Amino acid sequence: MRLLLVNPNMTTAMTDSMAALARKVAGDRAEIVPLTAPRGFPYIASRAEAQIAGAITLEMIADHQQGMDAVIIGAFGDPGLAGARDLFDLPVVGMAEAAVLSAAMMGERFSIVTFSPVMRRWYADCVAATGLSARFTGVRTPETHQPDVGRARDLLRADLVALARRAVVEDGADVVILGGAPLAGLAPEIAGEVPALVLDPICAATAQALALASLRVGFGARACKPVGKPSVGLAPALGRVIAAG
Amino acid sequence: MRLLLVNPNMTTAMTDSMAALARKVAGDRAEIVPLTAPRGFPYIASRAEAQIAGAITLEMIADHQQGMDAVIIGAFGDPGLAGARDLFDLPVVGMAEAAVLSAAMMGERFSIVTFSPVMRRWYADCVAATGLSARFTGVRTPETHQPDVGRARDLLRADLVALARRAVVEDGADVVILGGAPLAGLAPEIAGEVPALVLDPICAATAQALALASLRVGFGARACKPVGKPSVGLAPALGRVIAAG
Amino acid sequence: MRLLLVNPNMTTAMTDSMAALARKVAGDRAEIVPLTAPRGFPYIASRAEAQIAGAITLEMIADHQQGMDAVIIGAFGDPGLAGARDLFDLPVVGMAEAAVLSAAMMGERFSIVTFSPVMRRWYADCVAATGLSARFTGVRTPETHQPDVGRARDLLRADLVALARRAVVEDGADVVILGGAPLAGLAPEIAGEVPALVLDPICAATAQALALASLRVGFGARACKPVGKPSVGLAPALGRVIAAG
Amino acid sequence: MRLLLVNPNMTTAMTDSMAALARKVAGDRAEIVPLTAPRGFPYIASRAEAQIAGAITLEMIADHQQGMDAVIIGAFGDPGLAGARDLFDLPVVGMAEAAVLSAAMMGERFSIVTFSPVMRRWYADCVAATGLSARFTGVRTPETHQPDVGRARDLLRADLVALARRAVVEDGADVVILGGAPLAGLAPEIAGEVPALVLDPICAATAQALALASLRVGFGARACKPVGKPSVGLAPALGRVIAAG
Amino acid sequence: MRLLLVNPNMTTAMTDSMAALARKVAGDRAEIVPLTAPRGFPYIASRAEAQIAGAITLEMIADHQQGMDAVIIGAFGDPGLAGARDLFDLPVVGMAEAAVLSAAMMGERFSIVTFSPVMRRWYADCVAATGLSARFTGVRTPETHQPDVGRARDLLRADLVALARRAVVEDGADVVILGGAPLAGLAPEIAGEVPALVLDPICAATAQALALASLRVGFGARACKPVGKPSVGLAPALGRVIAAG
Amino acid sequence: MRLLLVNPNMTTAMTDSMAALARKVAGDRAEIVPLTAPRGFPYIASRAEAQIAGAITLEMIADHQQGMDAVIIGAFGDPGLAGARDLFDLPVVGMAEAAVLSAAMMGERFSIVTFSPVMRRWYADCVAATGLSARFTGVRTPETHQPDVGRARDLLRADLVALARRAVVEDGADVVILGGAPLAGLAPEIAGEVPALVLDPICAATAQALALASLRVGFGARACKPVGKPSVGLAPALGRVIAAG
Repeated sequence: MRLLLVNPNMTTAMTDSMAALARKVAGDRAEIVPLTAPRGFPYIASRAEAQIAGAITLEMIADHQQGMDAVIIGAFGDPGLAGARDLFDLPVVGMAEAAVLSAAMMGERFSIVTFSPVMRRWYADCVAATGLSARFTGVRTPETHQPDVGRARDLLRADLVALARRAVVEDGADVVILGGAPLAGLAPEIAGEVPALVLDPICAATAQALALASLRVGFGARACKPVGKPSVGLAPALGRVIAAG
Repeated sequence: MRLLLVNPNMTTAMTDSMAALARKVAGDRAEIVPLTAPRGFPYIASRAEAQIAGAITLEMIADHQQGMDAVIIGAFGDPGLAGARDLFDLPVVGMAEAAVLSAAMMGERFSIVTFSPVMRRWYADCVAATGLSARFTGVRTPETHQPDVGRARDLLRADLVALARRAVVEDGADVVILGGAPLAGLAPEIAGEVPALVLDPICAATAQALALASLRVGFGARACKPVGKPSVGLAPALGRVIAAG
Repeated sequence: MRLLLVNPNMTTAMTDSMAALARKVAGDRAEIVPLTAPRGFPYIASRAEAQIAGAITLEMIADHQQGMDAVIIGAFGDPGLAGARDLFDLPVVGMAEAAVLSAAMMGERFSIVTFSPVMRRWYADCVAATGLSARFTGVRTPETHQPDVGRARDLLRADLVALARRAVVEDGADVVILGGAPLAGLAPEIAGEVPALVLDPICAATAQALALASLRVGFGARACKPVGKPSVGLAPALGRVIAAG
Repeated sequence: MRLLLVNPNMTTAMTDSMAALARKVAGDRAEIVPLTAPRGFPYIASRAEAQIAGAITLEMIADHQQGMDAVIIGAFGDPGLAGARDLFDLPVVGMAEAAVLSAAMMGERFSIVTFSPVMRRWYADCVAATGLSARFTGVRTPETHQPDVGRARDLLRADLVALARRAVVEDGADVVILGGAPLAGLAPEIAGEVPALVLDPICAATAQALALASLRVGFGARACKPVGKPSVGLAPALGRVIAAG
Repeated sequence: MRLLLVNPNMTTAMTDSMAALARKVAGDRAEIVPLTAPRGFPYIASRAEAQIAGAITLEMIADHQQGMDAVIIGAFGDPGLAGARDLFDLPVVGMAEAAVLSAAMMGERFSIVTFSPVMRRWYADCVAATGLSARFTGVRTPETHQPDVGRARDLLRADLVALARRAVVEDGADVVILGGAPLAGLAPEIAGEVPALVLDPICAATAQALALASLRVGFGARACKPVGKPSVGLAPALGRVIAAG
Repeated sequence: MRLLLVNPNMTTAMTDSMAALARKVAGDRAEIVPLTAPRGFPYIASRAEAQIAGAITLEMIADHQQGMDAVIIGAFGDPGLAGARDLFDLPVVGMAEAAVLSAAMMGERFSIVTFSPVMRRWYADCVAATGLSARFTGVRTPETHQPDVGRARDLLRADLVALARRAVVEDGADVVILGGAPLAGLAPEIAGEVPALVLDPICAATAQALALASLRVGFGARACKPVGKPSVGLAPALGRVIAAG
């Protein structure tokens, strides 16, 4: 199988670390084809940025979906997910959604722990979009924003462990999701210090992409697919997909 | 006051008819500044198209917000609304949201009646986004898609009246929203035939834009505003807004 | 236009201060016709009192609705709102509901800050009545009841700012509603000290009354209107409205 | 024990038939003290009427609570219930709420069947007020209003059985509540024709009043009780209760 | 009347203390027939244990339902409740559900206070099962597990009062449920120290069993009853009930 | 990897057909170890039966978990799922839950189509247990019960296609789950006749078991695990697991 791993952020280092984790999960079951956004933002952190980056995500998928078995949108917050799912005839998985739904199959209540209070609002919106808010114990973050996103993981390790422990003991979570691409790979490292299951979203997303692709469901004639229509100014491949309907 | 009326669709005739209705509501209280999408789609009808058109909407607002008192996003479905609201320091109103919240102040349960089954899914998502699904009696549409969107209003008039009546009698709605730009202006024409309040979304959106602007709330230092950041490949004005944070 | 501003409380000073704010919002668009409850309570603060004052509110509207374009119920908690809306053929706006729905069009999550813990329960019920509890971050109040309601605004200014700041930083609100007639007019004064939009309910209610009235929706033949019926012992005008159905 | 059965409607025949049923449920456990509203409406059927009749209900309870062990509000729709519960230091039970919560202890999903489409809206609001809408399969009624409320039970018997059967077979209800005082006593008569449990609200309310009273819970120092305050123009006993706090 | 009080726990002392309380509530209205689980656990405290003990509960009811008017499942958490309700032709009441629904008839928001953090998760699930989570202010417990369940009531008395007070003042509860069989009988003792109504679940369950039984509803031909079917290895009486359908 | 496929039903033919499908999904990634319930029911169809069969499921898992990487509970309705998840230190997947959550990652709204109206109630409860009722368009079934469960798939093929089509066109589902072990394997056969994605629950459950197992999450020290305790009369291995805590 081949999985397209679309990073809607422009930071290649993030793509690389996510691809490495995805490969570890996929093993020899699938080739991971990583892609970094050619324009947009170094790191998406708001709904406005997700609106723009989500449109770029659709372009990236349209350009590279040929021969793929599933798509992973590699940004916690899932920019472009709902639109991509309607448009393309293969499974499309978002990191936040995959982590949340995997958590819902491993425990009763889940928490998201992340590196910056700036993400709180957007991540809570993502959970609401899945419909599972009633099983969500909230987003726990440090109180101040760490501007060096790339080093967040190392600088904040102890804080993140403490937050995860509070999510378990005070909020009653039995699964903790480490949200945000900058924390990719941290889960197994801190799992021993947290009395709950600890999930890595890129791993969850890869596992889910493989799972959904393995079902070999036919996407042919979905009634929910948008009616084909002309467009102006879109990237050519995306325009063709939308024209075909 | 000056209200920016952004039509995320490319159809100028729609912009014209919405602007005419908006001017009627605004009277001499505000100048309506209409704008038609320079690229994108003739008529947005899905979440995928809304993802793309929403990004274009942000560009259009960034380009023309100077000197405006509020913004109306002139497409039922509100492409770009959440992002625009976080980003810009003035009230931003969506046609669907404004109609739904106005309906919630005029009655207990509201219905959306529109011209095509194709819109059902997206419109129901819009109501869910407001949080008011529990007061929503559903979307009523003709059973088949009328491809000539521009003539839907005339061709389907009798059907739409019948659907609105069923929304009242069978579903228990006391407010009926006529959803979708192609039905703009139809509400007062059929109101006498429907035993409920009948709302026109562009009129509701204009009234709400005026209402929110008249509150003169300070947008200065909102904690929820995205942190400023660099970007690549965005339209210049939008890039500047996002860089400023 | 003419807006009937019904104060279900008996305190004329409150009516005066609300009328002054309403006039500021309405400008030359509408005449504000204020009315103070002739019986009932100096200041409504519970569901029991709202049950009684709501019935008085219906009487006041029945007595003075002639020639009005909309009604504002000038008590946060909206006594009599649902009944008035069913009964009278013009828009009826409640201070709490108008503030909550305006907040929902200006941000994602809203908080209510008020002057006494005594109000917490009733205000939370009001939000629940709108259906928007999922976007509500709660009521923040001082811990003790300040019995001199008239001076609450001055005595508690610093506390209220601190509470509003906590609503933003700890609870994630991006709009703060200053609930309760005694805080009328405080919003613009403290807005600079709170990193969120700050809403004044009487201003929001006035803006919404103008907005809904400007839609000129026909109220004629609503199926939801109560069937006419005789009554005993009601104020004459109210009895006539109910008899007419 | 003594149970005050307050009929917020002015129709003595209804009070009599409800009292007879209540006495059958109470047996020798409690004396039923029936009371008919001295003013208001022959039969309450809307939220506006409930606003007014609810205030009258508070007066009636204040006048007669002395020596009572619990209060039953004898109108499906529970006018005045929330306020009465806050105000008076004894259990107060509403017919709709008692029926709904009893149904929730006897089955998984419940339906309300009643005699007129006019009641649909108000009854659905009552269920929403309990918080149990997710277990509610809806209100089933004949399509047209039967103006002779007193004879509804006899004239509509076959229709009501058919509606109850549809509530079970089509909607999945396992408990059917026969809503509205005019249907009091019908439940056992038709139970054999309906493949579900059939509940009579006045019986449920009497049983619940006895149940809650038998718990002998102390009402003394509830924090949720309204603070005492002066009032103008209230019935004397009600004024005294409110003044005492 | 005769009420079967099934204790799904194996601890006879608990059965005895629950039976004593039940007898006090029932007075001469009903004989209480207590039963202690012949196998299973000394004290159920998790969903896994409830799965097993719930099956044992069904056996106990099948063995002893003959001649009974209602059944009380005497464990807060209600093991086996949903299945028993479908299966047996008489009212079946659970301690948690009865306490929660009684609380919902006595106040607006309720809290559960119990003796160990270990119970939090299961008790919250129980409230969710009733559908009333929106009126639930949460479970308050001491921070550490007190392993001597039998002495919890005496050892933790002061802590429980303090927790109940916080549930009222901080969480806004107006009814406090003392959850868990080990706290049976404590409610009236501490009621004077808590500014809210304090409910004892076994008392609430007994009162509800009497209430539902007094309605004399016919259970005969419920459509929701499982279709009869053969089984292997079940206790004989339970096998017969299931075979009969 | 090794996946334990526990069939809580006693019908070996069902186990065989589920195992065959699971093997097809797992390919050479995992060995499927099927197990048929040694006692209980030929086919579970109610909550009462699920209570009993769920306890048997826990025994079966305790007896055979050694060396397994994940467990699949092979009955749509997921008997014993919540308890098993708390108790055992490996991923446990239920057919209904896995199908529902997979559906939620492949579309916006899902329907369940099954072979008998008898299952409606239990299946709807299963969806409610996941928390995703808001995205659920309901259970569609033939109107009458087909007693020969084993032949349901062949006898009802045309009916099931028609029901699935109605779920898409009338209810707005974009994913259809074919619920119930007797329909295992039917999904790919009818997919071409249904304009939506069609999911087979045993395939979804297998894919999810593989996905969750591949995450290699540490189950060691979960705070949510039940405290160890003695038991009487349990199957030995289950008793040991519960004693260990």
